[in-house]
Amino acid sequence: MTDKRVKKVVLAYSGGLDTSIILKWLQTTYGCEVVTFTADLGQGEELEPARQKALLLGIKEENIFIEDLREEFVRDYVFPMFRANAEYEGVYLLGTSIARPLISKKQIEIAEKVGADAVAHGATGKGNDQVRFELAYYALKPDVTVIAPWREWDLLSRTKLIEFAEQHQIPIAKDKRGEAPFSVDANLLHTSSEGKVLEDPADEVPDYVYSRTIGPEEAPDEPTVITIGFEEGDPVSIDGEKLSPASMLEHLNQLGRENGIGRLDLVENRFVGMKSRGMYETPGGTILITAHRAIESITLDRGAAHLKDELMPRYAELIYNGFWFSPERELLQGLIDKSQEFVTGEVRLKLYKGNVIVIGRTSPFSLYDQDLVTFEEGAVAYDHRDAEGFIKLNALRLRTLAQRKKRLGG
Amino acid sequence: MTDKRVKKVVLAYSGGLDTSIILKWLQTTYGCEVVTFTADLGQGEELEPARQKALLLGIKEENIFIEDLREEFVRDYVFPMFRANAEYEGVYLLGTSIARPLISKKQIEIAEKVGADAVAHGATGKGNDQVRFELAYYALKPDVTVIAPWREWDLLSRTKLIEFAEQHQIPIAKDKRGEAPFSVDANLLHTSSEGKVLEDPADEVPDYVYSRTIGPEEAPDEPTVITIGFEEGDPVSIDGEKLSPASMLEHLNQLGRENGIGRLDLVENRFVGMKSRGMYETPGGTILITAHRAIESITLDRGAAHLKDELMPRYAELIYNGFWFSPERELLQGLIDKSQEFVTGEVRLKLYKGNVIVIGRTSPFSLYDQDLVTFEEGAVAYDHRDAEGFIKLNALRLRTLAQRKKRLGG
Amino acid sequence: MTDKRVKKVVLAYSGGLDTSIILKWLQTTYGCEVVTFTADLGQGEELEPARQKALLLGIKEENIFIEDLREEFVRDYVFPMFRANAEYEGVYLLGTSIARPLISKKQIEIAEKVGADAVAHGATGKGNDQVRFELAYYALKPDVTVIAPWREWDLLSRTKLIEFAEQHQIPIAKDKRGEAPFSVDANLLHTSSEGKVLEDPADEVPDYVYSRTIGPEEAPDEPTVITIGFEEGDPVSIDGEKLSPASMLEHLNQLGRENGIGRLDLVENRFVGMKSRGMYETPGGTILITAHRAIESITLDRGAAHLKDELMPRYAELIYNGFWFSPERELLQGLIDKSQEFVTGEVRLKLYKGNVIVIGRTSPFSLYDQDLVTFEEGAVAYDHRDAEGFIKLNALRLRTLAQRKKRLGG
Amino acid sequence: MTDKRVKKVVLAYSGGLDTSIILKWLQTTYGCEVVTFTADLGQGEELEPARQKALLLGIKEENIFIEDLREEFVRDYVFPMFRANAEYEGVYLLGTSIARPLISKKQIEIAEKVGADAVAHGATGKGNDQVRFELAYYALKPDVTVIAPWREWDLLSRTKLIEFAEQHQIPIAKDKRGEAPFSVDANLLHTSSEGKVLEDPADEVPDYVYSRTIGPEEAPDEPTVITIGFEEGDPVSIDGEKLSPASMLEHLNQLGRENGIGRLDLVENRFVGMKSRGMYETPGGTILITAHRAIESITLDRGAAHLKDELMPRYAELIYNGFWFSPERELLQGLIDKSQEFVTGEVRLKLYKGNVIVIGRTSPFSLYDQDLVTFEEGAVAYDHRDAEGFIKLNALRLRTLAQRKKRLGG
Repeated sequence: MTDKRVKKVVLAYSGGLDTSIILKWLQTTYGCEVVTFTADLGQGEELEPARQKALLLGIKEENIFIEDLREEFVRDYVFPMFRANAEYEGVYLLGTSIARPLISKKQIEIAEKVGADAVAHGATGKGNDQVRFELAYYALKPDVTVIAPWREWDLLSRTKLIEFAEQHQIPIAKDKRGEAPFSVDANLLHTSSEGKVLEDPADEVPDYVYSRTIGPEEAPDEPTVITIGFEEGDPVSIDGEKLSPASMLEHLNQLGRENGIGRLDLVENRFVGMKSRGMYETPGGTILITAHRAIESITLDRGAAHLKDELMPRYAELIYNGFWFSPERELLQGLIDKSQEFVTGEVRLKLYKGNVIVIGRTSPFSLYDQDLVTFEEGAVAYDHRDAEGFIKLNALRLRTLAQRKKRLGG
Repeated sequence: MTDKRVKKVVLAYSGGLDTSIILKWLQTTYGCEVVTFTADLGQGEELEPARQKALLLGIKEENIFIEDLREEFVRDYVFPMFRANAEYEGVYLLGTSIARPLISKKQIEIAEKVGADAVAHGATGKGNDQVRFELAYYALKPDVTVIAPWREWDLLSRTKLIEFAEQHQIPIAKDKRGEAPFSVDANLLHTSSEGKVLEDPADEVPDYVYSRTIGPEEAPDEPTVITIGFEEGDPVSIDGEKLSPASMLEHLNQLGRENGIGRLDLVENRFVGMKSRGMYETPGGTILITAHRAIESITLDRGAAHLKDELMPRYAELIYNGFWFSPERELLQGLIDKSQEFVTGEVRLKLYKGNVIVIGRTSPFSLYDQDLVTFEEGAVAYDHRDAEGFIKLNALRLRTLAQRKKRLGG
Repeated sequence: MTDKRVKKVVLAYSGGLDTSIILKWLQTTYGCEVVTFTADLGQGEELEPARQKALLLGIKEENIFIEDLREEFVRDYVFPMFRANAEYEGVYLLGTSIARPLISKKQIEIAEKVGADAVAHGATGKGNDQVRFELAYYALKPDVTVIAPWREWDLLSRTKLIEFAEQHQIPIAKDKRGEAPFSVDANLLHTSSEGKVLEDPADEVPDYVYSRTIGPEEAPDEPTVITIGFEEGDPVSIDGEKLSPASMLEHLNQLGRENGIGRLDLVENRFVGMKSRGMYETPGGTILITAHRAIESITLDRGAAHLKDELMPRYAELIYNGFWFSPERELLQGLIDKSQEFVTGEVRLKLYKGNVIVIGRTSPFSLYDQDLVTFEEGAVAYDHRDAEGFIKLNALRLRTLAQRKKRLGG
Repeated sequence: MTDKRVKKVVLAYSGGLDTSIILKWLQTTYGCEVVTFTADLGQGEELEPARQKALLLGIKEENIFIEDLREEFVRDYVFPMFRANAEYEGVYLLGTSIARPLISKKQIEIAEKVGADAVAHGATGKGNDQVRFELAYYALKPDVTVIAPWREWDLLSRTKLIEFAEQHQIPIAKDKRGEAPFSVDANLLHTSSEGKVLEDPADEVPDYVYSRTIGPEEAPDEPTVITIGFEEGDPVSIDGEKLSPASMLEHLNQLGRENGIGRLDLVENRFVGMKSRGMYETPGGTILITAHRAIESITLDRGAAHLKDELMPRYAELIYNGFWFSPERELLQGLIDKSQEFVTGEVRLKLYKGNVIVIGRTSPFSLYDQDLVTFEEGAVAYDHRDAEGFIKLNALRLRTLAQRKKRLGG
């Protein structure tokens, strides 16, 4: 694969040791110009050190791209996904999956701008992230060359990586010399941890793995009550205070973190075919999905709600598998977005030691009709006798079946 | 509808005031023989008083049927449903829905035995339960006559009901004279509450409505750790102790109750067309669904798991709508049951103030393969280079699309 | 139900004997003002006689509404449905179902205009059409009163109907005195026949029942070759000649009719619960669905195409059941419409004695890439070796399963 | 990939030139023992010449396996698939896809028997068949080595192949020297043709490509009327004569062939990512699917039928993509098979110049109830007034929506 001739490559660069090694390896292996792209998706790291590191490694000033994508990430990726109540395999809120398409998109935009013919990422050859990055690359720039160093090089042990770093004067932080006890990915939506100490699914996740939340046990004894305002399916305010998408998620994260909310220990099925065990912390997202379901419960019609529920597993799978930029995801998104027209109102929640408890919902567009439920006759009259006909016709085919059975001596 | 001529009717009889009034009303309105059926589904009430009450109201000894259905209920209804991870509208564990088919089935069996031509139930004309009872009746005995007093009579206020009771010497407990502030249904799986004080979905559920669980705030400060053993998708032991289905659910209920687990405040879409607000307490079921998903996570193949996830919303809807005895529910059940062949093993859980936290899972049939996940080569070799081809072919159609877009100047 | 007080009712009026009887019955039973609505949906009948008949029956000039809906019908109902390749129960092109919502919509619009509080239709109490009419009425005017004479009156035999007509000086054509050997519904999309001579599904449909097509046996020995042009999923031209929606369908009908195309003898499942046997003639529609699938085959991506295929049965069921004006149909329609953006091009067809044979398709937006299929390398290179990785990773979970089986001695 | 060490390989061997070259290439490249497996799936070729050819090419007598799989193929693969009414992309009857799993299974059985560590097939690197063969291999023997010569060797032109054949004394039929104008695959279910002259989807399929059917134009002027008997979803007799599965399909093929039935010209989406154009002849299968739908129409309940229809596209996709031996296909098959319990009866068909016309169906288990459809009251009474309640409750949510719209001034 090193026979691909590459002139200029845009690397997804974090500034950390691993992507610094990749940077150097690209230079030495492909002899090509390297352009770095460092994005702030809310992973909680400073971006300037990445610039310094890139310069140090010989990247030209004009080849260093750094961008704060937090608002775009939440507005155009996280929120659209939450409109679908997407949960992969029933529980996982897709925090890693949803970040990849945006990074890929930006790399491709930069590649177009600087005339690069290749892109590179630091995802390993066994995971889902390589798929997510690369499907997005190809979907946006079909003729791009993709370099996936972890699938190509022979730096297959920590020792070899460190040797390579030393050889090429890459600074190595002390705590990076040994193998990490687990690997971490973070963005504004979540932190995921996997590998090593987490590998046996029989063993409890050690306390030191958690970084984003306190445990339910450590959370305050007093519940926190908040009201989230929604407009057309997206959260727009907390306790009446309007918030931008990223600020909203930050606030929810803070609330979730403090109340021990959003931890998940999971064995999941990777797209590349094996099962893996991960630990996820999604404090704000966990609050958000509960609140979103609650506001939908009074504003969405049953037909729309059940259609969404039936399509959700496939929608979540598409995002998990890396098909964000695919016609089928876009078609489903269009349907989901259109369903949210009246998903506007407020949800009151109690946050308490890991629990997200809905305690009230209101909406100017509520379909909940007290008159229909009680005995009082509402504007839409409900006649009890209608139920008889309703049941009789719903039962008709079942009765016909039963008669066949009877006829057969069943 | 009172022109239906009825000779003998089997009434689902709880022994309470309302079904006692129905009993009398059937006798006086239809002039027919009434057979009572009282079932123990774990609602937590004595059955003998129902017998005494029936005798008092003039029911013949041989026309009183009382049965403890707890084991059958859990084994043949609750557990099969949990194999599917069924949740209606994303969250509701279907505790009321699942009890109706069994009661109906028993009523029909008794009707066949005693030669009754009709059955009756005490469900109201606005709810789902009438549908569930009656679809089951018709599916099992297509020529049965169904009497639904709440849809037929004119006892439409509490005052009229009480008057009728007094007129017919039906004993009235003091606290039953006034209108209850909410109505309750209970069985071994759950307790549901709805109506009156719960009618405004903006208002928090008052504390006094909860009867089945303590609140997370009142739960112990120390977590409870348990291990649930599964065999072919069903829970069979707690901490190594084998338990019958009903005992299992009772134990889980006790554990859930003590740890503040399983409360749900929900606005749902009824089959009869309106939204209603309910409060559910499903302590054991809430533990069970989490545990079941966890044991599936290591024993079910992705293909089977995702198929189940996609079919679940419709399966849950069928049960909610009362189609337990329908070909489509039975076909889906067959598929679900078959998928559980290897869903055997143990799940360790931490229960803490409303949280059900998975902390470990093991199985003799685990598909989790540590060798595949780590760099070590397993019995099934994973070659990193395979990922490239995998991605390339998955990307092929997306690249073709991108080229079309490009050609069009997109 | 005759206790509903009604002042003015808009009747879907064909001018035929049955709806004339209904007209009179409404006047005499409800004592209300009757407004007639007669629509041309391409059923092949003159509309003016309906006006004369209405006048004769005492309807005021300003209460007679007659409208040619052919273009609207095809453009806004038929074509959108064909974008979905909708077939109910695998084969039925929904010709009756799709006409009802439009008629209902117009009735409601007239009701709003003339200040009517009720609407009425002539559908029987055993069929689907009553459901389709009424669900549309309620969805568009929730407080409307619906009168369904066939469910209310006691004119339950032909004799009684004729008596009523005679009593009220309704002119009776000679051939309408006796019971028709089958009933017919027609519009621009199809003609359906059912009842009486068609009732035994074991018996072949008698020749005289067909009215819209010649049989394959009578069709010409020479095939007809045509080219249909599509734009964004809709047919717009035949052999280069641009045609309006209704003209397009008329032309296709003519072509189908002459070539013995579009007959269907079917036992179907009605929404109201029983099976019924019908005979449908859909000459143009049968050509159209084949052509539409063909143009999609080169312009739609697999992801979009398969998503559409999976959603189609439910979409067709919604239309069949009368849920055209429902959020779920509208959401699905939005998805389907969006998928058609590039479904533009030409399809060449051979029509021959009942057969519709695709013999060629071209599109400026074709995704068919000859270079990819042959050995020549295209703009998007296809590397044979990629297939190995693709297969290996797709096989990974199956191999893991096989190893488990082996381990268990399977 | 030639670094895989292989001792003994089981080759799917047709006896033709291409697989003979593969045979020799395996011997010379891998230096391994070659075992040939030649199966009769009804492709219409003698098997004995394959034996002679194998002997000639140096295969030991005991390493030559020849088997007539026709009955097994139809009974265990074709019929189960037709129970689902499986059509890929709406029209393709999966004739090629369904043959691969059986061949693979037999190769693996032979590999186990003779102690081979590898299997090989002659499918190209761009098609679906390689995927289907190999997924089946891996699912049945996870540690097997798979050799796919067309992905590995450098015999990438006809000239090189012929040279290799000459070099190794492989007999070459005269008509095999040049490149074939299209490639063909055949078995008892169908013949498929693709490539070269078929590559431009704008061009009509030339007449000489068809080999399995006469054209509708050449078919007799007299229709053929037949009655197919079904038992539990499978055809068992024609005109009263019991037939084994393979004989059944042969008879249907003959009938289809003579009446110009079963041609399909299609652009389809391959699993490996590109579109391809193929021409299929499935004479018997085309008759069978129509007949099967017809017998289901009177014996299957609506709930079961619609569930099947909704699952069908995914089931067909699984088979097309090669996942026959996967848990999800097996689970769906279980559901489908169970649904067929009462799919027993007779269907009368008219075959005429490409048309398959249902003219009658009967069943001892028919759910079609004439009494329900007509005005006469059946054993299960249908009360017209029930329809009102049925509609009213189905309309309730739509009315609530309409009121919201109204409130908003919509």
